[in-house]
Amino acid sequence: MSLQFLKVHTHLRYACGISSNFQRNSALVKTWTRRESKREREIFANKAQLKAFFCTTSHTCSAQSWGSKKQKRRVQLRAATDFIMSNPEIETQLAPLRERVQEQGNLVRELKAKGAPELDVKKAVAELKIRKKVLEERELALTPSIVSFDRAKMEDLLKRRFFYDQSFAIYGGITGQYDFGPMGCALKSNILALWRQFFSLEEQMLEVDCSILTPEPVLKASGHVERFADLMVKDVKTGECFRLDHLIKQALEKLSAAKDATAALRAECEDIIIKLDGLSKQELADVLAKYNIKSPLTGNDLTPPIEFNLMFATQIGPTGLVKGFLRPETAQGIFVNFKRLLEFNQGKLPFAVAQIGNSFRNEISPRSGLIRVREFTMAEIEHFCDPAQKDHPKFKRVASEKLTLYSACNQMDGKSAQALTIGEAVSSKLVANETLGYYMARIQQFLHAIGIKPECLRFRQHMGNEMAHYACDCWDAEILTSYGWVECVGCADRSAYDLGQHTAATGVRLVAEKRLAAPKTVEVSEIVPNKQALGKTFKKEAKAITDALAKLSLDDIKKAETQLAAGEQYTLTLPDGATHELGTESIAVKHATKTVHVEEFIPSVVEPSFGIGRVMYALLEHSFQCREGDEQRCYFTLPPLVAPYKCSILPLSNNAEFQPYTQQLSSALTKAELSHKVDDSSGSIGRRYARTDEIAIPYGITVDFDTLKEPHTVTLRDRNTMKQVRIGLDTVVSVVKDLATTKLTWAQVLEQYPAFEQQEATK
Amino acid sequence: MSLQFLKVHTHLRYACGISSNFQRNSALVKTWTRRESKREREIFANKAQLKAFFCTTSHTCSAQSWGSKKQKRRVQLRAATDFIMSNPEIETQLAPLRERVQEQGNLVRELKAKGAPELDVKKAVAELKIRKKVLEERELALTPSIVSFDRAKMEDLLKRRFFYDQSFAIYGGITGQYDFGPMGCALKSNILALWRQFFSLEEQMLEVDCSILTPEPVLKASGHVERFADLMVKDVKTGECFRLDHLIKQALEKLSAAKDATAALRAECEDIIIKLDGLSKQELADVLAKYNIKSPLTGNDLTPPIEFNLMFATQIGPTGLVKGFLRPETAQGIFVNFKRLLEFNQGKLPFAVAQIGNSFRNEISPRSGLIRVREFTMAEIEHFCDPAQKDHPKFKRVASEKLTLYSACNQMDGKSAQALTIGEAVSSKLVANETLGYYMARIQQFLHAIGIKPECLRFRQHMGNEMAHYACDCWDAEILTSYGWVECVGCADRSAYDLGQHTAATGVRLVAEKRLAAPKTVEVSEIVPNKQALGKTFKKEAKAITDALAKLSLDDIKKAETQLAAGEQYTLTLPDGATHELGTESIAVKHATKTVHVEEFIPSVVEPSFGIGRVMYALLEHSFQCREGDEQRCYFTLPPLVAPYKCSILPLSNNAEFQPYTQQLSSALTKAELSHKVDDSSGSIGRRYARTDEIAIPYGITVDFDTLKEPHTVTLRDRNTMKQVRIGLDTVVSVVKDLATTKLTWAQVLEQYPAFEQQEATK
Repeated sequence: MSLQFLKVHTHLRYACGISSNFQRNSALVKTWTRRESKREREIFANKAQLKAFFCTTSHTCSAQSWGSKKQKRRVQLRAATDFIMSNPEIETQLAPLRERVQEQGNLVRELKAKGAPELDVKKAVAELKIRKKVLEERELALTPSIVSFDRAKMEDLLKRRFFYDQSFAIYGGITGQYDFGPMGCALKSNILALWRQFFSLEEQMLEVDCSILTPEPVLKASGHVERFADLMVKDVKTGECFRLDHLIKQALEKLSAAKDATAALRAECEDIIIKLDGLSKQELADVLAKYNIKSPLTGNDLTPPIEFNLMFATQIGPTGLVKGFLRPETAQGIFVNFKRLLEFNQGKLPFAVAQIGNSFRNEISPRSGLIRVREFTMAEIEHFCDPAQKDHPKFKRVASEKLTLYSACNQMDGKSAQALTIGEAVSSKLVANETLGYYMARIQQFLHAIGIKPECLRFRQHMGNEMAHYACDCWDAEILTSYGWVECVGCADRSAYDLGQHTAATGVRLVAEKRLAAPKTVEVSEIVPNKQALGKTFKKEAKAITDALAKLSLDDIKKAETQLAAGEQYTLTLPDGATHELGTESIAVKHATKTVHVEEFIPSVVEPSFGIGRVMYALLEHSFQCREGDEQRCYFTLPPLVAPYKCSILPLSNNAEFQPYTQQLSSALTKAELSHKVDDSSGSIGRRYARTDEIAIPYGITVDFDTLKEPHTVTLRDRNTMKQVRIGLDTVVSVVKDLATTKLTWAQVLEQYPAFEQQEATK
Repeated sequence: MSLQFLKVHTHLRYACGISSNFQRNSALVKTWTRRESKREREIFANKAQLKAFFCTTSHTCSAQSWGSKKQKRRVQLRAATDFIMSNPEIETQLAPLRERVQEQGNLVRELKAKGAPELDVKKAVAELKIRKKVLEERELALTPSIVSFDRAKMEDLLKRRFFYDQSFAIYGGITGQYDFGPMGCALKSNILALWRQFFSLEEQMLEVDCSILTPEPVLKASGHVERFADLMVKDVKTGECFRLDHLIKQALEKLSAAKDATAALRAECEDIIIKLDGLSKQELADVLAKYNIKSPLTGNDLTPPIEFNLMFATQIGPTGLVKGFLRPETAQGIFVNFKRLLEFNQGKLPFAVAQIGNSFRNEISPRSGLIRVREFTMAEIEHFCDPAQKDHPKFKRVASEKLTLYSACNQMDGKSAQALTIGEAVSSKLVANETLGYYMARIQQFLHAIGIKPECLRFRQHMGNEMAHYACDCWDAEILTSYGWVECVGCADRSAYDLGQHTAATGVRLVAEKRLAAPKTVEVSEIVPNKQALGKTFKKEAKAITDALAKLSLDDIKKAETQLAAGEQYTLTLPDGATHELGTESIAVKHATKTVHVEEFIPSVVEPSFGIGRVMYALLEHSFQCREGDEQRCYFTLPPLVAPYKCSILPLSNNAEFQPYTQQLSSALTKAELSHKVDDSSGSIGRRYARTDEIAIPYGITVDFDTLKEPHTVTLRDRNTMKQVRIGLDTVVSVVKDLATTKLTWAQVLEQYPAFEQQEATK
């Protein structure tokens, strides 16, 4: 396999990983299921070297399937390219260089195709290499801090120090499921604790914790039973499953890459691949048939496309008759409790409800590490408000927050994202309303606070065709990672859709009331039955008829009135389907007026929805670093607020005299509620620092021989700068506490305490 | 229905609720599945008035099924009785009074039975009432604080203020599933946060977060696939399911209560009921047949007993071939990650791993509110240690902690629980080892810290017949509630069972190593194959044979040696079942000695396992109070540490001048990370205090007209005592912070600040 092949293959793998045809099937999509960008499609549609094996469904795979050394080089290149291509300013500078490369690449392909003399080809390749080098160097120069990212190296570290790893690995593992080890679990807890403080506490939200197992009727009403599906096909002999969009794309790419492919065929294939997400089930089936696509693994025939519902099904109770699903999102638990929550809030709007919990999606073939998994933690907010009043009292506080907005309009015009304050965006109607804008700004503030790089965050607006039919406006917070721009937080105005659906399904009116500015007189029409006449004519049926009459809509009443006035009979249909003819002898229409003081309405919902695993993964990428001059010494620059441990305690050696001080510090840190790690193992101090850096411990206290002397002092080291100060034994814990809670900066510590100089040798 | 009937019915209902026949079927039971006590059985076995409807499986029921007014009186009596009967000291004092009541009751029954004159009966009943009153008054006097508990009243409050309520109620609800509203969710979060601090942080545990969806092989190894089941029978016509033990008990009770039942039949039935938990599936089937037991609902025939696995099953991935379950406990996720965790801990033992997460059990007929549910949060700890070293370095710190221990021995001798320090219990070998004892003491400290009443907590040791076969010793922390003693935390020494099972299933050795005091010489025996001879004789099979030989156990090798020495052939069985005869021409046995420095061993596991929902429910019962003289004014005395909100802010009226102060306080409380509620609705201040009391807010700040004057002051009110002080506007937040974090007591506040006197009118 050539290096070239390896690179392209990897590109495609990652591109597939974040693609989805889900939206075609569903009006419910909110988050975590975005298609690859058009740009990505264009790159991959032209590639020649493709293999079949990445499109199959693998349920189990070895624990080595992520983070292995093999992928290292490929991922690194991909990452660098992506970071640059996402920055429109840099891209402008690079465009002529890219063009020069492409021009020369075409020449090489042309020479090869027509069988030109080897020397000519070699010369052309040499020129190509030069042009590529110029481009790459320029790229490196423009994005110096990002280009060094090496995903495989990071994943190796994440596995090695058990931030997270594949679940049930000793049993062969399950794709799309991960266990969080001590560091991953603590990081996740800290992110969630901050989230609670940032949203629930700060915004006085009502937090709830609802059931995961959800009976079928609830998810029928929400639309998930019918539409939460991906299309797949099966190998008719082996039963192997393939996600249909992945399969077609791969087959057509192979076809158009064949030597004997005509230009017309190539164009046709490319056209289909670009349009793939927009094709219907039938159209996709037609593509399968037209190109006679078989199983890429066995060459066997495939079944017609099957809609595979992504929810995990089970039975509740022993009879096997009550079907249930694991919830695919936490939101429905909030909607079905709306009445209780409104009552808890004393009937007042607006109010917001938050929920943190696990959701489940039975992905056909999960990939891309934490980005696409079968079990994941979400943090969702449902902000209920009057549809006529979507302003937000705290909007002024965030109005000047600058966001990178990638509007639907710009996306369609091929323009780039733009930086705007959220105030400008709302006043120019780019963002639909203040409440939506307020949450977008808060989402950004939160992501910045946990350590997401500002330059790697943008808000992308859904375009018309990808927006759920109920949504007024929807913006995704996308974070740039080595997988490309990954949707990590959705922020949608869902209007009255969900409450309306559950009201329709249950008959329980999920509505709020508001006092009218002035009482209103409304006309009320009703049908008055002549009970005596009805009883005489219809006997036992009379009650059912009276009940049905009471439930008639205003339209039906008007219709009845018209018919009766015209001397006709009105035909009443009972719930059981029976019909009865009724005339003026048994019914009459009565009109009256009524004064009402309140108005009922279905509240609108604005929904920020966080995929915690994705945010966490992006954060790990953004904080991954290697020490200058020592590529093997990697670490995470996680901010102290979210770092798993806040501090390490390292006795200089295993000298017994150090022990009381180590223990004293540990007790004091525990009392101050600071998570910490004592590393009294053998190994040089530098080596142990490196080990604590790997698990992102921001500060390190070293107990040394000076600690034994009065006044007792220790050294305090900063992970990011590796600088140290000498500090009193009895003050160090409060300094660490202040650092960990961002009340103090390292720069301030450097000013206040004498520097301590020491070589950090790792050997 | 007579009151008498209602009472008995209720007794039985609750008794069923906490009973389980699960242990008979499983060696895996750890927690949440205890049988009713013998005492309870004896009470109910004699009752005459029984109905069939409570033993059926209901999947859905109306949202009114718990906390409704109807149960009020019954529960109250039950609760009072239970509290008293559980206290052996009180019981001794009450015994003669009980006897007198019983004597008179028997007289009344006798008179009625023989049709005595009405006047005689009335006189006897009057005397009975007097004796009962004497008994009840004595009971009340002996348990004044507990007897006022009224479960229905509490449940009404829990529903009304949405602490928690039945899930999906607008869809008819699902039994055994609950949604936690804002107050329940905050209480749960606070309990878990404290748990993390108390265990994870304090003990430097490794916290993990593992997958819920678990593939079948993992749960086969753990024994859950085979044995995690309850027996049930189905109505052959309607398919209605009944839990077998509940059904038999109910049927036999009905039988023995019939008018024409002979004394022999009654004794027989009673005997079976007492032995019910110990009967095998076949024995239970025989009981069904012998007494011709039918469906209590329809009178239809029943199926033979079926083992119903309590795990929720689903499929992972699209093929439908990978069977998975929702985990029934969080522990397995820790065991399968043992290797990674040991490595994270640098290979050193002991260490403890914690996990908080949801587990799922598909109960046949869940009841008893939060006590027996289908979806629940657990907090589990697995403490791994050397089986030869179960002492604990911090044991000394807890040695003097006094626990109420209800030993297996005392249970069998009919004696009561005894109070002992954990130091005494371990040194007398009542509790197996220091590690187990340490955790028992810590569990108690934690439960006291969150507000569980010390007098309502005991540790009950598992008796021989209920202990899982692998457990060395097991103590359940049981909390007394109106449902009786409820097992809320299990604390078991699981020995090497789990790691051994997963090692056997996967071949991955889940072991630790320890350095030997002195190197050891060990004899090594192995079979040396004559590869050439094997190849010649067995051709392709030779490799499989060589592999199988390498895996022979020491016993097999010895057996082979003996046979070969005797001139016989050794019969080797391959994994596929094929057998081959091997003689000295193809194999030889070789002995050698080897010096080893380390020893491998499977660590022992001590497991404290918390049922968070149960702990929370017990806490709510223990903290439920009504104001003296005002039965309608109920509240929860939850400690500030776990209370959902820490503080309320109440402007005296909706005067606009108060607003800036209210806002300023709210901002300051938010900044101090204190959850709080602003109640600026109309209603008298007393009424609003009552409302904040209902949701357990421990402190209330009132902004009044004096707040407007300089120096600005507010009042601060304590929920439990309803006392108030006048306090500076700029100091109140830090005082509340100190109160909420237990750095300050209310008594100290009373000393430091002037009292503020005001009537609290609720009208």
